[in-house]
Amino acid sequence: MAGTITEKILSRHIVEGEAVAGQEVALKIDNTLTQDATGTMAYLQFEAIGIDRVKTQFSVSFVDHNTLQTDFRNADDHLYLQSVAKRYGLYFSRPGNGICHQVFLERFARPGNTLIGSDSHTPTAGGIGCFAMGAGGLDVACAMAGAPFRIKYPKIVGIKLTGRLNDWVSAKDVILEVLRRVDVKGNVGKVFEYFGEGVKTLSVPDRATITNMGTETGCTTSIFPSDEITREFLKAQGREEDWQLLVPDEDATYDEVIEINLSEIEPMVALPHSPGNVRRVREVGPIKVDQVAIGSCTNSSLRDLMMVAAILDGKTVAENLHLTISPGSRQVVEHLIADGGYASIVRAGARIMENACGACIGMGCAPRSEGVSVRTFNRNFEGRSGTKDAKVYLVSPETAAATAITGYLTDPRELGEAPKFELPKKFFVNDNMIIKPLPEEEAKKVEIVRGPNIRPLPSFEPLGDKLEGKALIKVGDNITTDHIMPAGAKILPLRSNIPEISKHVFEAVDPSFYEKARSYGGGFIIGGENYGQGSSREHAALAPKYLGVKAVVVKSFARIHLANLINFGIVPLTFKNPEDYDRISEGDDLEIAIGDLLGPCKLTNKTTGAVIELEHTLSKLDAEILKTGGKLPWIKKQF
Amino acid sequence: MAGTITEKILSRHIVEGEAVAGQEVALKIDNTLTQDATGTMAYLQFEAIGIDRVKTQFSVSFVDHNTLQTDFRNADDHLYLQSVAKRYGLYFSRPGNGICHQVFLERFARPGNTLIGSDSHTPTAGGIGCFAMGAGGLDVACAMAGAPFRIKYPKIVGIKLTGRLNDWVSAKDVILEVLRRVDVKGNVGKVFEYFGEGVKTLSVPDRATITNMGTETGCTTSIFPSDEITREFLKAQGREEDWQLLVPDEDATYDEVIEINLSEIEPMVALPHSPGNVRRVREVGPIKVDQVAIGSCTNSSLRDLMMVAAILDGKTVAENLHLTISPGSRQVVEHLIADGGYASIVRAGARIMENACGACIGMGCAPRSEGVSVRTFNRNFEGRSGTKDAKVYLVSPETAAATAITGYLTDPRELGEAPKFELPKKFFVNDNMIIKPLPEEEAKKVEIVRGPNIRPLPSFEPLGDKLEGKALIKVGDNITTDHIMPAGAKILPLRSNIPEISKHVFEAVDPSFYEKARSYGGGFIIGGENYGQGSSREHAALAPKYLGVKAVVVKSFARIHLANLINFGIVPLTFKNPEDYDRISEGDDLEIAIGDLLGPCKLTNKTTGAVIELEHTLSKLDAEILKTGGKLPWIKKQF
Repeated sequence: MAGTITEKILSRHIVEGEAVAGQEVALKIDNTLTQDATGTMAYLQFEAIGIDRVKTQFSVSFVDHNTLQTDFRNADDHLYLQSVAKRYGLYFSRPGNGICHQVFLERFARPGNTLIGSDSHTPTAGGIGCFAMGAGGLDVACAMAGAPFRIKYPKIVGIKLTGRLNDWVSAKDVILEVLRRVDVKGNVGKVFEYFGEGVKTLSVPDRATITNMGTETGCTTSIFPSDEITREFLKAQGREEDWQLLVPDEDATYDEVIEINLSEIEPMVALPHSPGNVRRVREVGPIKVDQVAIGSCTNSSLRDLMMVAAILDGKTVAENLHLTISPGSRQVVEHLIADGGYASIVRAGARIMENACGACIGMGCAPRSEGVSVRTFNRNFEGRSGTKDAKVYLVSPETAAATAITGYLTDPRELGEAPKFELPKKFFVNDNMIIKPLPEEEAKKVEIVRGPNIRPLPSFEPLGDKLEGKALIKVGDNITTDHIMPAGAKILPLRSNIPEISKHVFEAVDPSFYEKARSYGGGFIIGGENYGQGSSREHAALAPKYLGVKAVVVKSFARIHLANLINFGIVPLTFKNPEDYDRISEGDDLEIAIGDLLGPCKLTNKTTGAVIELEHTLSKLDAEILKTGGKLPWIKKQF
Repeated sequence: MAGTITEKILSRHIVEGEAVAGQEVALKIDNTLTQDATGTMAYLQFEAIGIDRVKTQFSVSFVDHNTLQTDFRNADDHLYLQSVAKRYGLYFSRPGNGICHQVFLERFARPGNTLIGSDSHTPTAGGIGCFAMGAGGLDVACAMAGAPFRIKYPKIVGIKLTGRLNDWVSAKDVILEVLRRVDVKGNVGKVFEYFGEGVKTLSVPDRATITNMGTETGCTTSIFPSDEITREFLKAQGREEDWQLLVPDEDATYDEVIEINLSEIEPMVALPHSPGNVRRVREVGPIKVDQVAIGSCTNSSLRDLMMVAAILDGKTVAENLHLTISPGSRQVVEHLIADGGYASIVRAGARIMENACGACIGMGCAPRSEGVSVRTFNRNFEGRSGTKDAKVYLVSPETAAATAITGYLTDPRELGEAPKFELPKKFFVNDNMIIKPLPEEEAKKVEIVRGPNIRPLPSFEPLGDKLEGKALIKVGDNITTDHIMPAGAKILPLRSNIPEISKHVFEAVDPSFYEKARSYGGGFIIGGENYGQGSSREHAALAPKYLGVKAVVVKSFARIHLANLINFGIVPLTFKNPEDYDRISEGDDLEIAIGDLLGPCKLTNKTTGAVIELEHTLSKLDAEILKTGGKLPWIKKQF
């Protein structure tokens, strides 16, 4: 019986395959979203497929990442995206309108729909009962072209919430508690589905904070029911008609159940440099702090910023730190202004940033050298802040605001009585910064604008039966896509220019990687567990491919990166025996017999003579895509 | 008789020299200001002088330029500046508090005082009757150490204002009209002093817009009377006690008088790429625009942004352009929020930037490639926007807002009835982001914080009697300090690191300049009229000096840059016969006999054999400073 929400939604969307955990299924995708950092590439790929108009129910293109515009490249990308949206029938959310996930939740997300987005935090929409997954840009391009999206049918983990959050504790502390329990690896192929009485105590923005940062567990997605609270939220957004009831059946069963009593959660903090490195704030103690940064797709909703405003009201930001605030959307700002919260924030001395991702992706607000930064964001990977030796702590908006006032990491319960806040019965709805799709005939006349930084896609050859080359680099566990393909203000503007961006692959891990890859004509990457966690950026596959990387051999993969490797024709392989990881050193000459990729492969270490057995989880279709040289040439054949 | 305001203020401040136009006088300096881009170097120099506490009436350190923080360097600089201010008894305006000139006008500037600031737009305070000059950071450091500031006693040009501005015309149009008449060169050594009945029709912020952009004429400063309107403004700021009456005597005489009938001024625009390239908006016509940027020290006051808000109210930013707004100060923002203007701006879809210089100095908001950007700023030099091939038009806030709505350059008179706005009788005063000077004993205990990007000052040798080397570069007229030492998001963070920043000298003019200067061991710069106009950045002297530049030989100099060359031991020389400019080619081997620098010099072009007579305006003291190797070693000897 399809008793869980996940089963209910998936059963309505499976177009191929069986609903058996671990088996590949193809899902009809209702909606897509992109942001600009991954979007330019996604639309270049969509153009290459050659479809005349998006085939989804609706698709939305956002600009929220590359908003600093330190030279022409960001603005050129924005213009390209705006013209593509107009040409192909998408909604376009203009720069400054807000963070994609916040705006999507407010104005677009629908319970019961499937959504893929070229951003790993797309599961934010799970807070409203949407089955929302992060994906590589090419998968989003294919979905826009009407192709189904393939996943391994998930294991469904029920997270049973009981009780009610205490004062000063909020949704961020819930997801930090989840991360404390399940950590950032070992959750590939799972869906975290929230149920139980505690669900009713959480608003839609609360739920979205939880599903958003659920990404850090490595799961396929996280999802909440769509109930009366969801209906109220949608009604307040003027779109009650988008609501449908979506709750688990009484007899729903889960592959696994995790029970969390909300009443027992305290203010939590993820210590440097992993979102899974979670402690109670009071256990960590009063560390001196140099910066507090509030915002990001995790914690920039009206509820969050009103709490922050109430805490800051009448106070001044401590002299030893800077406080930056990046609101999630113009709707949030309009309410903050009307409710007086904005004035409190300004008066307290916060530095107000644009409604965008900003500091969370290292686009500005980098802390001082060796600085301690306390952030309401979802990731604290080393260097992601823009300052290599900074230490980033992840906390709730309440903890962040309390810290901003005192100057040191502070449990907000020290502040006395907690402020109360209720979501408005009717939100200010102002979609004037969202450009609507043009009628088809008009759309066909639109000319696409390409600046000089938007370079054509490189094309790649089909794979042979045997891969040869050097182990170019050997890395450990939990390597993130930030390690593989750094972001930040310097590198993000290169996202539509593969030859240029590829010079930065593995830059922080091994600055000589680019030179090595070029001089050896490519080769292999060797890694440990959870390789490729974090951001969905497909450049972490595309740029290594451009440098001639033929296969990645690791102990285990993160989901989205695995898909991206396949999409760009890099063979993703795992050690049958994890200890064989020790039998390859950087610089070794390797040969991998991949054959037709339908069975296991054999790696011969020509330097040591060792023969190592490799496995993979490739479907027949994956194998076909890989052998063709990647998904783009493959899908072009289909159309 | 000391009939003009200029004469009155200067007579009270001259400590050496005679009040005769063109003669060097030494002025007691009451106040100093710095911003962060020039300030880090100024304070490194102040530290090198070795004084224990600033000796001015008060000095203020602002952070408003380098606020993007794309890596650790900006934040490290901020922290250095904050700790220096604490250590040496300065006021410190924290990042986000606002643009130095706007905040100085609101909270610090005093009629009748002398002020030097390490920013060329320091004359903004002239709007309140303060004699305010831009200067190199080293001069500011010396003034903080109690040394007088030397200028050539100015010619006083009276600008007689009659009539009253029509609806839709504002102060920016007045200064554009001034620039249309006097252009950007030929005004060195002049003070523009405003008088006449028309003065009474202008508020203090209006006057400050005019004196601010007066900088673009190349004059020493611009100044308005301090009258009842000034008193009202100071009273509304809660500091009526800072007021004094300061008006010209009835029989005041001026070296020259320019008459401007305010009633005849129309909306004006400076076309690319010079602030002096001024036309009427209606003559230029409806150019399609890609970006409108509102803000900067010229036009970010409450009056300006309230006008913008009134124009935007109920409208939406045109689809073909982006509108960015950078408010001048937190006081401005607090009023905008309270008066409803902020909500109008947000609802219209403007992108709200931090209270800082931002786009005006190329720190973000760069336009698209080949983009047309309409800005309320004061400079439209090529490349300054961050986009080399962008075209920047300078206009009033009214014209900018009208353009933002229509999508093309628009005369605001097309919009119908003009909004009305009156300054508040009482401003919101909230100085909680200004850290006050510590008592002396406490200050002495403060430790100065230096990040790894803050490098020690290079030191330079005394000059000999003969300078030899190649003509490293030959440039034309109106070369700006942006040409010599570019700014923008990439280069500004290097301001405290001379070896690094010197790699970018003349980068946009001749990318091989650095290599040439290094391989030839330095040499000479040859230029035309008005060499060194624009920003006061002393890096345009310090970095060439570091590369071995010994003398700059041109047709004429801009004032602040001339002083900076002397300060850093580069000999500033002019052609006795301007046509001799044609007798030197790039790459020629030159020899200049400078002797004791008390008389004219002779240049021998060893490549062609030509002998060229050179002049200079160096005082005996200047000569002494130059021969010592610059002002820092010289002043260290004095203390």
